[in-house]
Amino acid sequence: MKILLIGGTGTIGSKVTERLDADNELIIAGSSSGDIQTDITNPASIKKLFKETGNVDAVIVTAGSAPVKPLVDSTNEDFLEGVKSKMMGQINVALTAMNYLNEGGSVTLTSGILSDDPIPQGSILSTINGAVNGFVTGAYGEFLQNGFRINAVSPALVEDSADALGDFFPGHTPAKMEHVVDGYEKSLKTLITGQIINIE
Amino acid sequence: MKILLIGGTGTIGSKVTERLDADNELIIAGSSSGDIQTDITNPASIKKLFKETGNVDAVIVTAGSAPVKPLVDSTNEDFLEGVKSKMMGQINVALTAMNYLNEGGSVTLTSGILSDDPIPQGSILSTINGAVNGFVTGAYGEFLQNGFRINAVSPALVEDSADALGDFFPGHTPAKMEHVVDGYEKSLKTLITGQIINIE
Repeated sequence: MKILLIGGTGTIGSKVTERLDADNELIIAGSSSGDIQTDITNPASIKKLFKETGNVDAVIVTAGSAPVKPLVDSTNEDFLEGVKSKMMGQINVALTAMNYLNEGGSVTLTSGILSDDPIPQGSILSTINGAVNGFVTGAYGEFLQNGFRINAVSPALVEDSADALGDFFPGHTPAKMEHVVDGYEKSLKTLITGQIINIE
Repeated sequence: MKILLIGGTGTIGSKVTERLDADNELIIAGSSSGDIQTDITNPASIKKLFKETGNVDAVIVTAGSAPVKPLVDSTNEDFLEGVKSKMMGQINVALTAMNYLNEGGSVTLTSGILSDDPIPQGSILSTINGAVNGFVTGAYGEFLQNGFRINAVSPALVEDSADALGDFFPGHTPAKMEHVVDGYEKSLKTLITGQIINIE
């Protein structure tokens, strides 16, 4: 399969790359690294990316961020930072992908556990992850009409981020990286669609 | 109770007003009607609103919209229209309310069934409703630290919109208006918090 992996050099993306690299034609897109550069906060940059890759069989996004900060200090601008990146960045990739997917193609986005299992200072990510999940639920029917599938992988705090982020996630058991990668492989290779694939 | 009801002249809001008006000091805010005007797409207008109302015991929002259109025609700008109104409009009300709620005060937002039960052309609303639900889940802990509660009412297609919108919701059973209003009253008068109150 020809797979566009956006965020393929990040914490999760690099493990997805390891799993899929041998048997697929992987195109790794990153903000500053990878085979090709893109800025997912800019819809025009996403369009340029797909023009360069041409048609693909699948798109996986493991990119996008949102601020983590106390709710009382969180402003409209802080939320919009997450909207531009992890929310609309991923949604714009999905919308653009509809013009570049081969028959039977799939899109896999990344949300995260905070939509349902909150932490202090995590309100913006809870909001953004909820939006990404809502998009997958709302959009899968019209993806299907075009012969495409779409899912989101929603990981817990992942093992490889536990040292850096564990203090923000008290009492959370980190998800094993191989289980997280399983989620992306399941979305890619089974025929499920419209699913939020929770990895705990 | 002194209650600020934003959207109190709309389809749902007018029924909430009927239920709560006799026993409370209701301040009805609308974009062009009601006791006081506000534009929830503008954070400065929301701040001005609360400056005018002063402290309140509860805030209920039944305002906010998002475009309904085919996914293949939906652009970044279409999504941002919903982000500015039903998503960040409500979230900015909640953030501002934290500075104006009396001890034990509550905020009740409005999401909707499409986050979980999608319709054709409804992807933007599914996304926005998911974001509002995610915000309530993410934020209730820090509301609690300030002595406040926050919930969302998530109604199905409501009875009073069934004539106008029913064609978009094939096979959906409209929710009775009195049941929808029950959801807001439950959020207001019980001690629940962090809940998505589904009304079907």
